[in-house]
Amino acid sequence: MNPDISRERENASFNPEILTNILDGGAEKTRRRREIESLVIGDPDFQHEDLNFLSRSERYDAAVRKSAQMILKLREYGISDPEEIYSYKSCVHRGRPEPLDLHLGMFLPTLLNQSSPAQLEAFFMPAWNLEIIGTYAQTEMGHGTHIRGLETTATYDPSTQEFVLNSPTISSIKWWPGGLGKTSNHAIVLAQLYTQGKCHGLHAFITPIRCMNTHMPLPGVVVGDIGPKFGFDEVDNGYLKLENVRIPRENMLMKYAKVEPDGTYVKPPSDKLTYGTMVFIRSMIVGESARALSKSCTIAIRYSAVRHQSELRPGEPEPQILDYQAQQYKLFPLLATAFAFHFVGQYMSKTYHRISGDINQGDFSELPELHALSAGLKAFTTWVANAGIELCRMSCGGHGYSRCSSLPDIYVTFTPTCTYEGENTVMMLQTARFLVKSYKQARAGQQLTGTVSYLNEPQSRIQPHSVSSQPTVVNINDLASLVEAYKFRAAKLVEMAAKNLQAELQHSKSNEDAWNNNSIDLVRASDAHCHYVVVKLFAAKLSEIGDTAVHSVLSTLALLYALHGVALNSGDFLQAGLLTVPQLAQISKRLKGLLSELRPNAVALVDAFDYRDEMLNSALGRYDGNVYEHMFEWAKRSPLNHTEVHESHHKYLKPLRSKL
Amino acid sequence: MNPDISRERENASFNPEILTNILDGGAEKTRRRREIESLVIGDPDFQHEDLNFLSRSERYDAAVRKSAQMILKLREYGISDPEEIYSYKSCVHRGRPEPLDLHLGMFLPTLLNQSSPAQLEAFFMPAWNLEIIGTYAQTEMGHGTHIRGLETTATYDPSTQEFVLNSPTISSIKWWPGGLGKTSNHAIVLAQLYTQGKCHGLHAFITPIRCMNTHMPLPGVVVGDIGPKFGFDEVDNGYLKLENVRIPRENMLMKYAKVEPDGTYVKPPSDKLTYGTMVFIRSMIVGESARALSKSCTIAIRYSAVRHQSELRPGEPEPQILDYQAQQYKLFPLLATAFAFHFVGQYMSKTYHRISGDINQGDFSELPELHALSAGLKAFTTWVANAGIELCRMSCGGHGYSRCSSLPDIYVTFTPTCTYEGENTVMMLQTARFLVKSYKQARAGQQLTGTVSYLNEPQSRIQPHSVSSQPTVVNINDLASLVEAYKFRAAKLVEMAAKNLQAELQHSKSNEDAWNNNSIDLVRASDAHCHYVVVKLFAAKLSEIGDTAVHSVLSTLALLYALHGVALNSGDFLQAGLLTVPQLAQISKRLKGLLSELRPNAVALVDAFDYRDEMLNSALGRYDGNVYEHMFEWAKRSPLNHTEVHESHHKYLKPLRSKL
Repeated sequence: MNPDISRERENASFNPEILTNILDGGAEKTRRRREIESLVIGDPDFQHEDLNFLSRSERYDAAVRKSAQMILKLREYGISDPEEIYSYKSCVHRGRPEPLDLHLGMFLPTLLNQSSPAQLEAFFMPAWNLEIIGTYAQTEMGHGTHIRGLETTATYDPSTQEFVLNSPTISSIKWWPGGLGKTSNHAIVLAQLYTQGKCHGLHAFITPIRCMNTHMPLPGVVVGDIGPKFGFDEVDNGYLKLENVRIPRENMLMKYAKVEPDGTYVKPPSDKLTYGTMVFIRSMIVGESARALSKSCTIAIRYSAVRHQSELRPGEPEPQILDYQAQQYKLFPLLATAFAFHFVGQYMSKTYHRISGDINQGDFSELPELHALSAGLKAFTTWVANAGIELCRMSCGGHGYSRCSSLPDIYVTFTPTCTYEGENTVMMLQTARFLVKSYKQARAGQQLTGTVSYLNEPQSRIQPHSVSSQPTVVNINDLASLVEAYKFRAAKLVEMAAKNLQAELQHSKSNEDAWNNNSIDLVRASDAHCHYVVVKLFAAKLSEIGDTAVHSVLSTLALLYALHGVALNSGDFLQAGLLTVPQLAQISKRLKGLLSELRPNAVALVDAFDYRDEMLNSALGRYDGNVYEHMFEWAKRSPLNHTEVHESHHKYLKPLRSKL
Repeated sequence: MNPDISRERENASFNPEILTNILDGGAEKTRRRREIESLVIGDPDFQHEDLNFLSRSERYDAAVRKSAQMILKLREYGISDPEEIYSYKSCVHRGRPEPLDLHLGMFLPTLLNQSSPAQLEAFFMPAWNLEIIGTYAQTEMGHGTHIRGLETTATYDPSTQEFVLNSPTISSIKWWPGGLGKTSNHAIVLAQLYTQGKCHGLHAFITPIRCMNTHMPLPGVVVGDIGPKFGFDEVDNGYLKLENVRIPRENMLMKYAKVEPDGTYVKPPSDKLTYGTMVFIRSMIVGESARALSKSCTIAIRYSAVRHQSELRPGEPEPQILDYQAQQYKLFPLLATAFAFHFVGQYMSKTYHRISGDINQGDFSELPELHALSAGLKAFTTWVANAGIELCRMSCGGHGYSRCSSLPDIYVTFTPTCTYEGENTVMMLQTARFLVKSYKQARAGQQLTGTVSYLNEPQSRIQPHSVSSQPTVVNINDLASLVEAYKFRAAKLVEMAAKNLQAELQHSKSNEDAWNNNSIDLVRASDAHCHYVVVKLFAAKLSEIGDTAVHSVLSTLALLYALHGVALNSGDFLQAGLLTVPQLAQISKRLKGLLSELRPNAVALVDAFDYRDEMLNSALGRYDGNVYEHMFEWAKRSPLNHTEVHESHHKYLKPLRSKL
């Protein structure tokens, strides 16, 4: 054990294990998570060479091998709780996406939720037993966010009782679905349904794409891998071009909408039914933001505790870089953010489960708010975590660029969350739509509930004030007061956006133009709303913490999170009259104080995230702090070192001598 | 040609060719640059498969092949002007780093500048003719920024007149030098010189590391590749461990410092001599920031002109995504930044060349300011460009994640600039040191010159005011007034940092502690200073533009750049009393207006950067806008598509069926 990092642990003021239990949701959950991790990490079937040393084809191969093993073992061990499956799977693939993700996470659940009983009978068990391996083919080369714009067609032919599937243009080629390129033999294809000469919009069709025996593409099917990406090297994201592919009528998913044998179309009872899945996935992504950021903080903070550099005081040894204020200012607000997002993730997951009961009972009353909140928080947390991972990487100096740090891998694995499952700016605008609607309802005298209830509060509180004529609103040392300030900032920005929208309507051609011409304000309002929710939930979590020492350090983190956000957005708070100019200097001073307070607990705080070395896979982030030894061992295994002399020397460089 | 993108070009209000000439520094330079580009791009010896489809070893191999060809052809064509060599080289390697970079850019120049005449004789021609291939081995595993901390030792043995080189610890292993792993047979090793029992600090030693015949590592030399990184796949960044390696006395670079045969050490005349190179390289990096950002903007803006998505108005066709205000708000400020950085790069290069004449004459008077400015601007521009590339990538939706967009490659190639040649936070603190020193000089009545002369202006102008008692300082429609506002903001933040430093000294143990405890303020002051310099240089450039149409569009960009910066940092401007709260709403409105004004010229503006398709290598950024066709062609060539059925199907997935 590196003595620097041991000393850090000795100096901590709290017991990390208690905090780990809080993050896991209880001591029993921690125990079970660790049990599963040991099961996987000790299993020789899941060992592999560092993926960074392999070619893409080898990485795909290794991932398929492990996924196949995983399916067998999950059944062997009887692991069936979704959370435990998730734990096991993350552990097998070390948090990376894998070729069967869409089969397990989209194909099977969609079959389950949208099949008629006959379809369940026909498709579910073969899919459960991986004879049928499927994916979910929605996005097309020219169409992502706006799914109504999808061009793939499914035209019903009553003479043969078949649908004829086509990709009529190049932009209609299905593009991006995971596992589509090489792994799947079926796809649930989203296509515009045409029957009896009329288009009935998007419907889902179970489409065989490869031969069940030879795995060769079926006639009319052009399928393949879309090529290398920024990360996701283990996944065969694919393309699919359909040329008059015929499938039986029974292959349209018919639990809700139907096409009868003669071609008569029967409408689905409600369009809110597919809403729930989206909300669920976006809520999950909030948790992913927390995990990606907490892993990155673990690596950067442990490394900063063992890395020595430069001189603080002449003649003295080089200090740990964690002692530099500039380094603390990069990492500690991110550490606070990681905790904040963990608690927001817990809240979202709990709320989803509470509400999904209601949804199944046909009560959709809370869905719009949860929908808006999950969209906004998905965008808010992924943007922040995305930038935060890179800040962690760059805070590790040169070594952060090495693949042995794992930080590049964390980034490329995480960054697509800003785009998939709802492009972030589009998500922010969806939340804004809900906020503006709620604002109007509040102005019309309706009593709002939930996270937007602040829009009901007296308008006088959120009018702009000239700074001099108004008492200071915020107490910068009091978290509750800061939560209020965030609330009024959000209210102010929602109001401004709504009023600008109203003003724009006077001289815009349409509602839509007015909306577009105020997008900047609308995104800003959503951002402020989400920021408020995060600060509020972090503060609320504190009241649940019994342990005094843990409560104390989490309170410091929460205050740091809140004040850092005020400092970064000081213009908003000044503009809203929630802050005075002299307070800015006080905040700046207080922030420095909080960094010093946190310094002795930094390593213990990342220890509490409880990532095993095998999960982090980072030479810089090792628990024992023995960084350099492991970097050297890792480098020696680099493929370029398999031979002492690379063949290019003999081919190009040595012959050059005689030519010059 | 895609009709959308043709229409964009027809609607532009200016002639892009004129702007291209301005960016190149004259029509003749544009002509010559294009001539060189055609020479390389038409040359069959430089053709290659997309690097993204190759393994790392193949990529290294291809790069070495092209570098060897390049050396031959540069001599064949008699290209010897450094700028033209740079152009040719960028074109051969499409802007990527390559294995001979350190040989050409560090090893040869260091030999030239620091060799004694006898050393020049012995080493320069063999190195020029690539018999000797060298690198520059400075950083060690445990030591980067703080080069005085390097641990490698060179101990003089007068009995044999040799230096004995050692890596005494694991942290002293040389780590990161480009071309060290497999390519070089020599390295200039930076080591602590010991002679006659005394350490004389860092000196440079020409060290043979591989056999000139077999290319095998020499006895006592442990050398290899440091493993895969985030980008830089073509470069063999290496490690070097020295175990009692003996080199002749004549191998220490002795133009300045010397060790005599008996071991007597002779000091160098000045330590400022190596300063110039650092300043030069940092100035060059400012230009790199401009290039990386302008490439990214070219790709994102062209793609946004041909990509259609969602509905602006119900029933109408999906609009070009460039019509969305939110998209414009992401891309146009970055476009303005790219132009700003181009002009700053031109200024830095011109200033460097002006001053380097003086330096050669022994006049170092302007060096401290240029040193501080190049450090700060290197950090300022690389941070902004780094985040900007990612914003461009994410603005392209899913396809930005595909390697065919080239955006991931631009990012991973560029991002190390934030760390190498001076870690950015360290750079900002260096600039701050100069600013604080200048501030004190100004307070002591000295008349400052150059970019910091504003610190001489009356203090009353930069005192905090209560907003209500003070007339508005800034006219948000006047660039000159905005430049003034940036100036006063910088002055204010420098003053605050200096005063906080002074106050901290009352209760700090030392100057160094006080400095560390104010790093946040100091970095912020440097950032504001650099921001001011960029706005000022952009504004100054406008006066040189003769063409009315180009002048007009550049003025719009400059105003956008300045106002966007005010909006992002509104707290600072409010705090300094340079802005009133009602002005914030005006700025927000004006920004929206500027986005609309720029919209018709966006494609023509990126055309003016004049990147050939072969240089961009991006399916999304193609000049002809035929994005989807080329994505599809590219994907079909993906290595995973070389076979219809991947072997993993037969190995793992098919056998699974019988086991479940």
